[in-house]
Amino acid sequence: MAETAREIADELRERIRSGDLGPGARLPGEPTLVKGYGVAKETARRALTLLVTEGLAVRRSGSGTYVREFQPIRRVANLRLSEERWGGGRSVWSADVGQRPMSVTELRVYEASAPEDVAQILELEDGAAVIIRDRLFAVEGEPVQAAVSYLPADLVRGSAIAQEDTGPGGTYARLAELGAKPVRFVEELRARMPSQEESERLHLAEATPVVEIYRTALTEDGKPVEVNRMLLDAGAYVMEYRITG
Amino acid sequence: MAETAREIADELRERIRSGDLGPGARLPGEPTLVKGYGVAKETARRALTLLVTEGLAVRRSGSGTYVREFQPIRRVANLRLSEERWGGGRSVWSADVGQRPMSVTELRVYEASAPEDVAQILELEDGAAVIIRDRLFAVEGEPVQAAVSYLPADLVRGSAIAQEDTGPGGTYARLAELGAKPVRFVEELRARMPSQEESERLHLAEATPVVEIYRTALTEDGKPVEVNRMLLDAGAYVMEYRITG
Repeated sequence: MAETAREIADELRERIRSGDLGPGARLPGEPTLVKGYGVAKETARRALTLLVTEGLAVRRSGSGTYVREFQPIRRVANLRLSEERWGGGRSVWSADVGQRPMSVTELRVYEASAPEDVAQILELEDGAAVIIRDRLFAVEGEPVQAAVSYLPADLVRGSAIAQEDTGPGGTYARLAELGAKPVRFVEELRARMPSQEESERLHLAEATPVVEIYRTALTEDGKPVEVNRMLLDAGAYVMEYRITG
Repeated sequence: MAETAREIADELRERIRSGDLGPGARLPGEPTLVKGYGVAKETARRALTLLVTEGLAVRRSGSGTYVREFQPIRRVANLRLSEERWGGGRSVWSADVGQRPMSVTELRVYEASAPEDVAQILELEDGAAVIIRDRLFAVEGEPVQAAVSYLPADLVRGSAIAQEDTGPGGTYARLAELGAKPVRFVEELRARMPSQEESERLHLAEATPVVEIYRTALTEDGKPVEVNRMLLDAGAYVMEYRITG
């Protein structure tokens, strides 16, 4: 009857996958596992640790181990970026299907020299000025995404893009008014573990990666007019892309 | 002069980001950090551990800590899925820009009952038969992606899709011949930590997430004809999507 930590973890994982232990449910504690499986306390603890390491469960100190609540925000890039969406005064964010209301909890707008990689993507000279919009987005008070947009200062200085409130339709509607309407977008994604600073800013749970997205917005002529570097709590998001063959 | 582990990690991270310590470079060892910063051995070790935890560095036992080599495979979904690409007898994989040659190191093709989630996506009845193509892909001998395709058995049974070698143009060219040409694709992505089993199958380094992608292929009529569940070594891939606004 005595099993290994891995075998116990396999059984608990199967109960999570099948829904028998739903999101937020408390997993059996160490004493329960010790009795139920006839194993040492150390083995029981290792079984639970395996699930935490996989990101399936979360430990709450002094309380126990719980099934992680994964109620993802569905980020549908194609809906978000279609002109229909942002042309009519709606927020890009409202296109996230099935999400709870998202709010901006931090916002800094300022002018500075472009970082080297951004200058390169925006085809600007070294040290050229950009308007930077640095935002933190939260759902139900919890941060889920940090986003930093860079736009050529020579293009957007003096427009609402350089203000905190960009007005109806946001940055892309203003760019259109400036004769630099974005019509094509490239998103590059990678996933990795966060730095400690990133982990703290996004209040990430243990064993939670981040998804880093660079989005470049291009005009009809192929001129890059914005670079947006986003950092997403991977535990909060499902990303969806629709592609025509 | 004595600094905290975090401050030392900050300085090393900056040297990695700036390229002063390039991919594969050996980081200063504990004795060097102890001398250089005037800190305890334990502090030096914690500084290095922080970088390993962030996925920036990799420990090799008995040898030291090294800057992770990130030479990503660029996975451009839109190129990969365009008809031009797979219509002419080329592999979907050859569209990955700048990648080293990718090979299939494991391949199992068999018929079985569809898992519940797959049956739902493919709009099949519970327990309906599917042809399953289970593959492991490697670059330079190292596994980088596991992919399991599911196709309705009633549609593809008897075609080359049910064989190990699907022939020129692969699965999608065969589907076209069967009158079920895929023209639209939906990819859903999430990033998470791997299970131990996944970690072993993909030979993942410590602190490396996986990217899980479900791709559904649809015909002109919107009929789903394939579900492909891919599991990518996040340390090996950059994903790119091109979107028209």
